Amino acid sequence: MTDPYKATPADDERFMNMALDQAAMAAEAGEIPIGAIIVSPAGRVIGRGHNLTETLADVTAHAEMQAITAAAQTLGGKYLQGCTLYVTVEPCLMCAGAIAWAQIGRIVYATPDSKRGYSTFTSAPFHPRASVCHGVKAQEAADIMKSFFSLKR
Amino acid sequence: MTDPYKATPADDERFMNMALDQAAMAAEAGEIPIGAIIVSPAGRVIGRGHNLTETLADVTAHAEMQAITAAAQTLGGKYLQGCTLYVTVEPCLMCAGAIAWAQIGRIVYATPDSKRGYSTFTSAPFHPRASVCHGVKAQEAADIMKSFFSLKR
Repeated sequence: MTDPYKATPADDERFMNMALDQAAMAAEAGEIPIGAIIVSPAGRVIGRGHNLTETLADVTAHAEMQAITAAAQTLGGKYLQGCTLYVTVEPCLMCAGAIAWAQIGRIVYATPDSKRGYSTFTSAPFHPRASVCHGVKAQEAADIMKSFFSLKR
Repeated sequence: MTDPYKATPADDERFMNMALDQAAMAAEAGEIPIGAIIVSPAGRVIGRGHNLTETLADVTAHAEMQAITAAAQTLGGKYLQGCTLYVTVEPCLMCAGAIAWAQIGRIVYATPDSKRGYSTFTSAPFHPRASVCHGVKAQEAADIMKSFFSLKR
């Protein structure tokens, strides 16, 4: 398996900031503010996505799904071996399954989702050699979710 | 929650045959032969799909995902409460997550998938009030998979 991009902590913050930009775009569109970025083994951004479930009236249109589809289109192939996914909120079971199918090598998420996050259901949904990292920009990711839902009420 | 269509065993076989027709279409297109059908609470077929991962070069293009997106388009809304999903093979974790988000009320699958089926990872990924049924046309669904993979080798 190709090794994921060897990101420094500063790289992780930079990429997570891009995912947060996607989350902000979602919020502006009235969508739950979750954003995702996919980075190639060479450190290039090859996919971006944010939640589009309301716009598309489609429960499957999560940020990660959009980013995975976009990255596969960029690469011209469906597998994303050695790629890193940055996402602002812990992936749900659906997205975790998609991440596994795509063979993504490293998953970095900002803030946990105690209700619908994959880890509530299973501890190891990903490729056996994939690594998981969380907590990068966690406060920012949680804040954008909180402020979105407080405006909704 | 709306009650799913009260299918008789003959109804279940009829709808699973439609899902098997989708699987056959997938096989003809060189795709892993899995098919899915979604039935409304009134017993109407509102979504169909088969695996398209090769054609679309997209790991997320499973039969169930296609059928869920199609059914949401038919209904003009993203939730499929009270709907029944018929699928020829046990859903994977990704599809199980999508089924949960769509709030599908009844899941009927033909043959288990001991390697990638959701039940290998978690027993209860669906809506708390959803029911699950399996074994309908199991032999036919397993046979079409077996013959596809034997031709591939």
